[in-house]
Amino acid sequence: SLAAPVVAQTSPKITWRMTSSFPKSLDTIYGGAEFIAKAVSEATGGDFQIQVFAAGEIVGGLQAADAVTSGTVEACHTANYYYWGKDPTWALGATVPFALNARGMNAWMYYSGGIDLYNEFMAKQNLYALPAGNTGAQMGGWFRKEIKTVDDLKGLKMRIGGFAGKVLERLGLVPQQIAGGDIYAALEKGTIDGTEWIGPYDDEKLGFYKIAPYYYYPGWWEGGLTVHALFNLQKWNELPAQYKSILSNACMAANQDMLAKYDRKNTTAIQSLVAKGTQLRPFSPEIMQACFEAANATYAEIEATNPAFKKIWGSIKDFRKEWFFWSQVTEYNYDTFMMIQQRGGKL
Amino acid sequence: SLAAPVVAQTSPKITWRMTSSFPKSLDTIYGGAEFIAKAVSEATGGDFQIQVFAAGEIVGGLQAADAVTSGTVEACHTANYYYWGKDPTWALGATVPFALNARGMNAWMYYSGGIDLYNEFMAKQNLYALPAGNTGAQMGGWFRKEIKTVDDLKGLKMRIGGFAGKVLERLGLVPQQIAGGDIYAALEKGTIDGTEWIGPYDDEKLGFYKIAPYYYYPGWWEGGLTVHALFNLQKWNELPAQYKSILSNACMAANQDMLAKYDRKNTTAIQSLVAKGTQLRPFSPEIMQACFEAANATYAEIEATNPAFKKIWGSIKDFRKEWFFWSQVTEYNYDTFMMIQQRGGKL
Repeated sequence: SLAAPVVAQTSPKITWRMTSSFPKSLDTIYGGAEFIAKAVSEATGGDFQIQVFAAGEIVGGLQAADAVTSGTVEACHTANYYYWGKDPTWALGATVPFALNARGMNAWMYYSGGIDLYNEFMAKQNLYALPAGNTGAQMGGWFRKEIKTVDDLKGLKMRIGGFAGKVLERLGLVPQQIAGGDIYAALEKGTIDGTEWIGPYDDEKLGFYKIAPYYYYPGWWEGGLTVHALFNLQKWNELPAQYKSILSNACMAANQDMLAKYDRKNTTAIQSLVAKGTQLRPFSPEIMQACFEAANATYAEIEATNPAFKKIWGSIKDFRKEWFFWSQVTEYNYDTFMMIQQRGGKL
Repeated sequence: SLAAPVVAQTSPKITWRMTSSFPKSLDTIYGGAEFIAKAVSEATGGDFQIQVFAAGEIVGGLQAADAVTSGTVEACHTANYYYWGKDPTWALGATVPFALNARGMNAWMYYSGGIDLYNEFMAKQNLYALPAGNTGAQMGGWFRKEIKTVDDLKGLKMRIGGFAGKVLERLGLVPQQIAGGDIYAALEKGTIDGTEWIGPYDDEKLGFYKIAPYYYYPGWWEGGLTVHALFNLQKWNELPAQYKSILSNACMAANQDMLAKYDRKNTTAIQSLVAKGTQLRPFSPEIMQACFEAANATYAEIEATNPAFKKIWGSIKDFRKEWFFWSQVTEYNYDTFMMIQQRGGKL
């Protein structure tokens, strides 16, 4: 008779839970967790299952990382700047004002030691972090009135989160913390003068264009947000090498996928918004320069007392200087020429 | 006694060969095939092996696609514009003059139906094609003398491949086909006046800066080259669903990986080249505009007789117009501000 085959336990059956910081209605960014779960399940023939939960189903969106640190869930999909209040070093893996754009961040993460450097810090939170999505450069937000000078920022009540709010406080802006679902009413009533959210595709759903016609750019506090998958460090370390590889590559593919999705959907949405009367406005050079200097002053304060922040931000800054030299050569000139053709109606 | 477990044949042992169009010395672009092979092997615990061969080991670099069509090998990793001479439609999946940049191409491929549309054409070649790498915008090449006007192009002997050479012929340039290893000698002897290759990191290895000091940008014929993995259609269709998913995600991750690698390595190399005396020069607006018009004339000719080309190029053009509107809003303005800071020594 035939001998029973030896079944090596290289493919154990594992079920993990991944809590997202985002609601299902944000199909772009919430979709990143679903992408990872699907890729991992398919690659393992269903042996490694990751169940995805929307914000609030297990824990709230801003408690996602804590739930992974403590082991309540094995994984989450989140924007790490949500946790800057614990330590601003968290935000460096996501994005901070005037940091790298999406391509620069990926170059730093994957080929300039960024992933390892950031995980030195993440390990102290009992976490392992992998890039798993990017929004591209975000918009600067919606305002009821035009903002023309630095003086116009003084006393302005704007719904804007965390780190960027701290920078804008230096210029007299009054940052407001308001959950996504409550922004519209606050803006309509005039409780706030403006709000930032993400970009055209996500913003259009919330309808801000109906009550705040001026849509500013760029969102200098999010030049290219890296969304992360965070894993409980013990759980990550216990995975077989095969599953680690599958999960790492799924995150890298998710990183590519989300940016392509945002780029495609924002392209349609910006035109839809303009057709509905949205007025596009650039922040003035004066405002941009003042914000840049305010951000640098904030960084200098943090670096003086936070060695982990100083080390990682130093690495990003070193690369940032070189990246914005190289990318202004061929890439920027190619884009500029194509944009001139677009404006000239020649595309 | 224990019943022997039923071993479902979901993970058959498969060994494929993937021939690269590139030599191992181009670690960036050759590395894409190695990335895919490693990801697939690790994900399947070694059951699905892809053996990678450098250009020339099985077939020459420009015979890679033919070898897959005929089934000599199951897969290749190549730049599909190499095959434009069979039919220019091939080139549309890679890049053509004044097409999309890297992010735009990914948005079109993954979220604007590009992959399916292109595979309608690829299926006629008995192939299935997936994006599996991107170089970003390439440089315009190395010249012994400065090129200032459209007149300077007349009679200029330049090593430049395929489609772009055809466009430049309209302006009087004399394109030369010279294999990578022979370019340096031809340029040194003055047999050619200039040459294009890829970008700073790859170009530096070939040493052109020693004999042709003017390094032009942008490479308007390669605003964002998509490198492809091509699979023999029968072999692809025979794969279990699990392996198809693993291979698809490996290609998507390879796409992300190669761009990050180029972006990081080019960033260092451009500075090294400038330090060695390389003179960076933009193509003049006059030259760019003349090339754009020459390219459009070429497209009009092809569209008049080639329905497959017309259909796919039409889809790319529709998206191109919208993409270069959206990307000039927040992304371009963010980058511009950061580049101004870089030039001002403030980063």
